[in-house]
Amino acid sequence: MVNVGVLGATGMVGQRFIQLLDKHPDFEITALAASSRSAGKRYEDATTWYLNESMPESVKDITVCETSPEAMSNDVDILFSSLPTEFAAKVEPEFAKDYVVASNASAMRMVDDVPLVIPEVNPEFLDLIEIQQKNRGWDGFIVTNPNCSTIALTLTLKPIYDAFKINKVYVSTMQAVSGAGYNGVPSMAIVDNLIPYIGNEEEKMESETLHLLGNLDGTDVVNADFSLSASCHRVGVIDGHTEAVFVELDKNEDIADIKNVMVNFKGLPQELDLYSSPKNPVIVKDEDDRPQPRLDRLSDNGMAVTVGRLRKDAAMDNSFKYVLVGHNTIRGAAGASVLNAELINKKIL
Amino acid sequence: MVNVGVLGATGMVGQRFIQLLDKHPDFEITALAASSRSAGKRYEDATTWYLNESMPESVKDITVCETSPEAMSNDVDILFSSLPTEFAAKVEPEFAKDYVVASNASAMRMVDDVPLVIPEVNPEFLDLIEIQQKNRGWDGFIVTNPNCSTIALTLTLKPIYDAFKINKVYVSTMQAVSGAGYNGVPSMAIVDNLIPYIGNEEEKMESETLHLLGNLDGTDVVNADFSLSASCHRVGVIDGHTEAVFVELDKNEDIADIKNVMVNFKGLPQELDLYSSPKNPVIVKDEDDRPQPRLDRLSDNGMAVTVGRLRKDAAMDNSFKYVLVGHNTIRGAAGASVLNAELINKKIL
Amino acid sequence: MVNVGVLGATGMVGQRFIQLLDKHPDFEITALAASSRSAGKRYEDATTWYLNESMPESVKDITVCETSPEAMSNDVDILFSSLPTEFAAKVEPEFAKDYVVASNASAMRMVDDVPLVIPEVNPEFLDLIEIQQKNRGWDGFIVTNPNCSTIALTLTLKPIYDAFKINKVYVSTMQAVSGAGYNGVPSMAIVDNLIPYIGNEEEKMESETLHLLGNLDGTDVVNADFSLSASCHRVGVIDGHTEAVFVELDKNEDIADIKNVMVNFKGLPQELDLYSSPKNPVIVKDEDDRPQPRLDRLSDNGMAVTVGRLRKDAAMDNSFKYVLVGHNTIRGAAGASVLNAELINKKIL
Amino acid sequence: MVNVGVLGATGMVGQRFIQLLDKHPDFEITALAASSRSAGKRYEDATTWYLNESMPESVKDITVCETSPEAMSNDVDILFSSLPTEFAAKVEPEFAKDYVVASNASAMRMVDDVPLVIPEVNPEFLDLIEIQQKNRGWDGFIVTNPNCSTIALTLTLKPIYDAFKINKVYVSTMQAVSGAGYNGVPSMAIVDNLIPYIGNEEEKMESETLHLLGNLDGTDVVNADFSLSASCHRVGVIDGHTEAVFVELDKNEDIADIKNVMVNFKGLPQELDLYSSPKNPVIVKDEDDRPQPRLDRLSDNGMAVTVGRLRKDAAMDNSFKYVLVGHNTIRGAAGASVLNAELINKKIL
Repeated sequence: MVNVGVLGATGMVGQRFIQLLDKHPDFEITALAASSRSAGKRYEDATTWYLNESMPESVKDITVCETSPEAMSNDVDILFSSLPTEFAAKVEPEFAKDYVVASNASAMRMVDDVPLVIPEVNPEFLDLIEIQQKNRGWDGFIVTNPNCSTIALTLTLKPIYDAFKINKVYVSTMQAVSGAGYNGVPSMAIVDNLIPYIGNEEEKMESETLHLLGNLDGTDVVNADFSLSASCHRVGVIDGHTEAVFVELDKNEDIADIKNVMVNFKGLPQELDLYSSPKNPVIVKDEDDRPQPRLDRLSDNGMAVTVGRLRKDAAMDNSFKYVLVGHNTIRGAAGASVLNAELINKKIL
Repeated sequence: MVNVGVLGATGMVGQRFIQLLDKHPDFEITALAASSRSAGKRYEDATTWYLNESMPESVKDITVCETSPEAMSNDVDILFSSLPTEFAAKVEPEFAKDYVVASNASAMRMVDDVPLVIPEVNPEFLDLIEIQQKNRGWDGFIVTNPNCSTIALTLTLKPIYDAFKINKVYVSTMQAVSGAGYNGVPSMAIVDNLIPYIGNEEEKMESETLHLLGNLDGTDVVNADFSLSASCHRVGVIDGHTEAVFVELDKNEDIADIKNVMVNFKGLPQELDLYSSPKNPVIVKDEDDRPQPRLDRLSDNGMAVTVGRLRKDAAMDNSFKYVLVGHNTIRGAAGASVLNAELINKKIL
Repeated sequence: MVNVGVLGATGMVGQRFIQLLDKHPDFEITALAASSRSAGKRYEDATTWYLNESMPESVKDITVCETSPEAMSNDVDILFSSLPTEFAAKVEPEFAKDYVVASNASAMRMVDDVPLVIPEVNPEFLDLIEIQQKNRGWDGFIVTNPNCSTIALTLTLKPIYDAFKINKVYVSTMQAVSGAGYNGVPSMAIVDNLIPYIGNEEEKMESETLHLLGNLDGTDVVNADFSLSASCHRVGVIDGHTEAVFVELDKNEDIADIKNVMVNFKGLPQELDLYSSPKNPVIVKDEDDRPQPRLDRLSDNGMAVTVGRLRKDAAMDNSFKYVLVGHNTIRGAAGASVLNAELINKKIL
Repeated sequence: MVNVGVLGATGMVGQRFIQLLDKHPDFEITALAASSRSAGKRYEDATTWYLNESMPESVKDITVCETSPEAMSNDVDILFSSLPTEFAAKVEPEFAKDYVVASNASAMRMVDDVPLVIPEVNPEFLDLIEIQQKNRGWDGFIVTNPNCSTIALTLTLKPIYDAFKINKVYVSTMQAVSGAGYNGVPSMAIVDNLIPYIGNEEEKMESETLHLLGNLDGTDVVNADFSLSASCHRVGVIDGHTEAVFVELDKNEDIADIKNVMVNFKGLPQELDLYSSPKNPVIVKDEDDRPQPRLDRLSDNGMAVTVGRLRKDAAMDNSFKYVLVGHNTIRGAAGASVLNAELINKKIL
């Protein structure tokens, strides 16, 4: 068993980390860090628990510590981070001197020597770890996973990208409120309403997706060579991001072939049979009215992305379109970091 | 005063007709037709009223008649129709022998000699009326308005189309539940959920928009010459369709110029100062988080379309994107028919 | 293993039966009955599945049969019924000639020789089975469970009723939309709204509760001797009924003692360790803002009722008040019938 | 025209004040006060506007001032206050030295010499103004209106209380999210959920109602002599509080008589024909499924309370029950203060 800790343990994604790590065959939670307001308290006393699944017994009595390497006891190897961006930028490098940091924060994602990884998509980017450690003289390192809406999109684009040539992608999202944290979206903003804006979300989707589908050329990532435009919106759904995707290829492909590459897509986690890996990263449904976030977000424990309405785009040359649903706090956040850590644990540690 | 009637008077759009026609300076409701279940009853007794605005006193005592020319008393000149498609296809032509039918039904929209009109966009299509009457030997005629999501989109594209050259449009909608009628969307389908499919909606948007922006060449409509692809979704909003729009032009244009043509857009209804015409068909907001359906749907009594997040599309050449909100049962349905009738009343009757 | 079937298998409660019976240690689904529209089809093809949990593999290939004893194959012992009231009244007695019918329908609940049972509350009412079989000459029999909102209320009143003397109970409900079936509540009725009426619900709560807490005196049930008034309302929650309960006792009791009897309440299912029985039928939470339907409905797999805000009623003599949440389609419907069947299987069959 | 100002002008209730005062025949807004963050800015620039109705043109250019008598220009007579409780307790008395303060804040409601008034219920409590001014040596004074849920309840109880003898009242509320302010209720708390707790709300309802229905005996208010117990809950509705009310009288009364006194109820505002007074303070609907917040909250511009489901309580002696809906930020907040001010303007100033 590898001892692990969670940074930002009382927040929404922190709670998901705890839920996913509870009863994990390889990882055992031994440290929970949060703000100084929570430090020193039992986790149960420090936390307002928001998840439908109840708080695991195993963490209730853990004493929350402050979020600094000094406050962290030594018996931890991997730290999962769901820290806010600015704080992550400051503190994750300090932890990385001694620990493996598997981070869901956006702070370090686009830093040159920090791997931004989806295990099914670009596991080879983990080669950057060695460079990172050398550059910085760290014993530990930082590995990051992408933004929630990016992960779901990229998992569905990867098999397309490998089999065909993509020219352009347009994506319009309908994102769940949990993505903004428990207090992020007031009910006045979302009952009988939607919000057509999520700060920095479009920029993240547009840059991270091309990075993830790019190639690692020595120490540099060369972005994938197509154009991607995103429009991001918040709707009154608790969990599960929905995305409408329009894809233009360089030539006409049969829709059955496109479905085929999605359905048959497997990656390294499936090959290695990692504990959190879904049987199929992408599930394709044929019903007209799927995917729906409430019905499909928990497919394969929230780790699979569900695609539906896959159809030729009659209006556009060489084009097709589809809708996807992915669980934003499992596959799109905590589960992504855990899967990264499982891969690292198997291949690197 | 012109006497008017409503076909499908007890339904959701029928109620909107009644609300919009109440206190209208030119039109007076003298006939209300509905199914045989309602016929013979006072309107108030026949109807479960769904609108936030209360039922106008003036219609409560009108006796509902059946939906056939025989059952209709003679003192009516214009009939507003919100009949279901199949029934409209059968009965609207019968009414058109003697009456002007301003229809929100989709049945006759794409018929060659039936004008599909948005007064600000293609009022010249009303020239088809003469051809229609000659073709069919009718004293009356049928004029139709487009689908709810088409109207809002087309109003925003019209000034762009006139000023620049559009290559491609992608649109992803987040549509209100009222568009499906009172019983159309179960709450189980929409609470903590959304439905990524609306039957025939994408086809209507794709065909009607190009038709409306086309030219009337004698007896034929020549479609606008660009490509448009739609993906349509239902979200938990009562009224107000939201649409994310991506536009590719043939060359690079300044975003200020694009905003300018939208803001300054006026059409024939504004020129003629028609009673229901909004001061500006398109309102452009600068706030990051607008338009929102709950806050913007009733702009200019629900007859204006609100645009926001108008921005260059950095990812795509010669492209920009924006979000719009339009009231689906006012500007997108009943109000559209009423504005058509006001134009006809001024120019033709 | 006892072979079981589900009547009304494609509906909302029917799907819950299937979910709860899947992997059940004592019961195996061998028959699924539905309307003639579904009969003859594979269950997967006949059903639009509505639950968040996916359809169990084990039922997908079962051929749906019509809902009549003739259509039912013989290898079934217990039938779970979620039939609509009128149809249940007609067809359940026909099935009861040969089968054990564990019914969630309201049709037969208040019939003299039909036990209406919550296993933790009045298991002794099962003695009516012998009388029922004798009266009617049946080899099988019918046992019923109460209405969803009644079950949750009665489970919390039972320990109070046993320990103290209740004078009056007022209950005001906030009920989930799933209680009305998938198409029961339109989204237009519940988005930014609530409906202050549920047909027959108040009458059921008022009569069933006193019946369940009554005594079986030979062949007759003598109702519990207190007054109960209900006001029932539908709110925009998918699953989980919430009820605000005001109780007047005949004398002043310490709130700690009241909490104590609730917390320590156990019944026959706990004693017999029945598979579906919750560890504690009533869970009492101390947080100010609990119970909440989304967070508490699945307590103990949806079979426990969660109580919160238990407090003295300072305004009323000898009174206290509390709020409860119970899962309406698990503890309040399918799970109730299954627990009845488990008790029957252990004690009677 | 009386010049008026709004304290707390940028908040939710402050915006309602502005909406209700716009185009008011007797009042003209000349001052808007808010926090120092807003002070010095144009109102339009200082405010994120939340109401469906758009911001009145007349206030956009008013320069927001700080919330202190020194910062207030002199040309104001009446100040409407929607300040937070603690701040109101400190600053309202300072303003009252020179100004009439019509306050929606709870801070001063239960202070001995401060009238807590609903004009239809207890206008005679305004006699306390003279005492208050004498006690404190103020030229101005403070008058308060009750809590939102109290106002709606008390308006419906007043005609009952006057005509019959009430023993007990139980009330269970389903309150709108706007009552907590724009950021008060996170969407995570209310989508597919409800919150069974509102801080201090039950205490306010229980104390204020009996106070309002009491008698002013010289300088003291003698509370009404019956018992009232409240249980308060937050549901996913934007505006409009719904309350289920159970009433026990001292003897059996005919339900038709009870309805009669509600329907015929009029108070001083109706007699004086005050601008904001509803034609009938209480509207009684006969439909089974009314009142509904979305459909009934705006009755008589949001100033009437709508009652429905008025019925004998068969389970309880001498009892009846009903459901009410009242607009919480109009009749229950800003509109209540404005009506108080209209009465003061007519009778006292």
